[in-house]
Amino acid sequence: MSVLIVGSTALDSIKTPKAENPRLLGGSASHAAVAASFFSPVKLVGVVGEDFPPRYVELYKRHGIDLKGLQMLPGKTFHWSGEYELNMNNRRTLLTELGVFETFAPTLPKEYQNARFVLLANIAPSLQLHVLNQMERPKFVAADTMDLWLNIALKDLLKLLKRLDAFVLNDSEAHMLTKEDNMFSALKKLHKMGPKYVIIKKGSHGSILSGPKGFFLCPAYPLNCVVDPTGAGDSFVGGMMGWLATSNGPVDRHIRRAMIYGSVVASFCCEGFGLTRTTKVNRRAIERRVKELQKLTQF
Amino acid sequence: MSVLIVGSTALDSIKTPKAENPRLLGGSASHAAVAASFFSPVKLVGVVGEDFPPRYVELYKRHGIDLKGLQMLPGKTFHWSGEYELNMNNRRTLLTELGVFETFAPTLPKEYQNARFVLLANIAPSLQLHVLNQMERPKFVAADTMDLWLNIALKDLLKLLKRLDAFVLNDSEAHMLTKEDNMFSALKKLHKMGPKYVIIKKGSHGSILSGPKGFFLCPAYPLNCVVDPTGAGDSFVGGMMGWLATSNGPVDRHIRRAMIYGSVVASFCCEGFGLTRTTKVNRRAIERRVKELQKLTQF
Repeated sequence: MSVLIVGSTALDSIKTPKAENPRLLGGSASHAAVAASFFSPVKLVGVVGEDFPPRYVELYKRHGIDLKGLQMLPGKTFHWSGEYELNMNNRRTLLTELGVFETFAPTLPKEYQNARFVLLANIAPSLQLHVLNQMERPKFVAADTMDLWLNIALKDLLKLLKRLDAFVLNDSEAHMLTKEDNMFSALKKLHKMGPKYVIIKKGSHGSILSGPKGFFLCPAYPLNCVVDPTGAGDSFVGGMMGWLATSNGPVDRHIRRAMIYGSVVASFCCEGFGLTRTTKVNRRAIERRVKELQKLTQF
Repeated sequence: MSVLIVGSTALDSIKTPKAENPRLLGGSASHAAVAASFFSPVKLVGVVGEDFPPRYVELYKRHGIDLKGLQMLPGKTFHWSGEYELNMNNRRTLLTELGVFETFAPTLPKEYQNARFVLLANIAPSLQLHVLNQMERPKFVAADTMDLWLNIALKDLLKLLKRLDAFVLNDSEAHMLTKEDNMFSALKKLHKMGPKYVIIKKGSHGSILSGPKGFFLCPAYPLNCVVDPTGAGDSFVGGMMGWLATSNGPVDRHIRRAMIYGSVVASFCCEGFGLTRTTKVNRRAIERRVKELQKLTQF
């Protein structure tokens, strides 16, 4: 089955202690869509401006991503610029230019509306709701978010949470939203806000799932060298949704393995700037790391 | 087989946001010895002062710990006092009174010298070396340390590292010692300093082993409520060494499972002040959590 993915489609200018790369293909939806495309057909919902390089459209196409939901509007593509500190964990946003995303409220193509797997990748919760409202009968809806929305759009986010199957956020956001220091206390509170599945991302420490069948401690694939972690969280959730959409039967049976696949795609994402490394891997390379993760965690 | 454990035997005064407990039984060797005692006989090397409460001697005895190597000298027992912040991760030392540890340089009882498993729990590297020098033919020597020794006794520590099978330290110490931000780069450098096995502890994020058979990502048992993490790292390494000493055949075959047992004992340690919770558990409770950890990580 295919996955519908909405989120930001952006140009990212990324600075790390070792290099600087302007105007890379980025955005939560771009990372998530490429990650999901390794496992399932993807329908992308997003918007770009007239400055969007045609080579990035080609990149989406090479991954078989359905672009009927990607609008090109007069104006500038969403542009984000950020800088990482030496430890590659702390980053600060230097610039955010929303551009054509400022007023984006898409009407979904008819053939998008019956997608069974929906990923509301990180973007304004109002836009996530706007897309969700157009879906006919999704089987599994997951959403990611970021600290910005907790600060400026909490009401919309809380409304969205009631309608999700799965909510994905990172540890500091979980703390912000619940005021709980202990992750397991935070998880309890997050379930009360709506979603049956909650996944807390912990960067290089992996992630934790809390769902109807209890917890799952999902490892991160160990990396010798992190070049650029931008989009790792989006790749994780994209890979997870792509795997889920390709698996028959109840979500509960597949979600752990789906997280492992997401974790592996995220590891590739970190090994290059933007999407440069992710777009070069293939299914075989992914399977190899999944097997390695199995070996790394068995006892 | 039995484990010889040297380290601090202390009185700990611990303050958390919720409570304050003066003069609990503490010290790296106390935590490690009780943890190891669930799996193997333990020979303790340490020193206490005349103020050491007899009930703490009884506690060691209840765990079957051999106390021929525990001296009682005129003067005060090592006293440590610390305070935890709300998140229970950051702590600051309020007071360190070395007392009788100041000049402690024990001669090991004859029957201690042929122990095959030796744990040099956290204490001055010179004392760790002093004990190691008296061992006849140990099969497996592990040592733990703390940031203090990296600052004031680095030369001794580097000397010690050359003689270890396993070195256990936490992530911030690994960073301090190697100047590497990436944990896997740090591990490489740590191996070059001597030990074949290096284990980096990451608190609630678990730990990672790097050894001849590659990496092992060891999870931490998830806890709803951390009462007092003092001694968790010592319990981890104590439990690990206790399990190793009870397992036949090459260390490589057992070390992953040994770390899991250590991780479980450490989880109990965190659930009470000092050793109060650890001393109340039994082997069955430990096995239950080991099984749970297996379920929590399978995919």
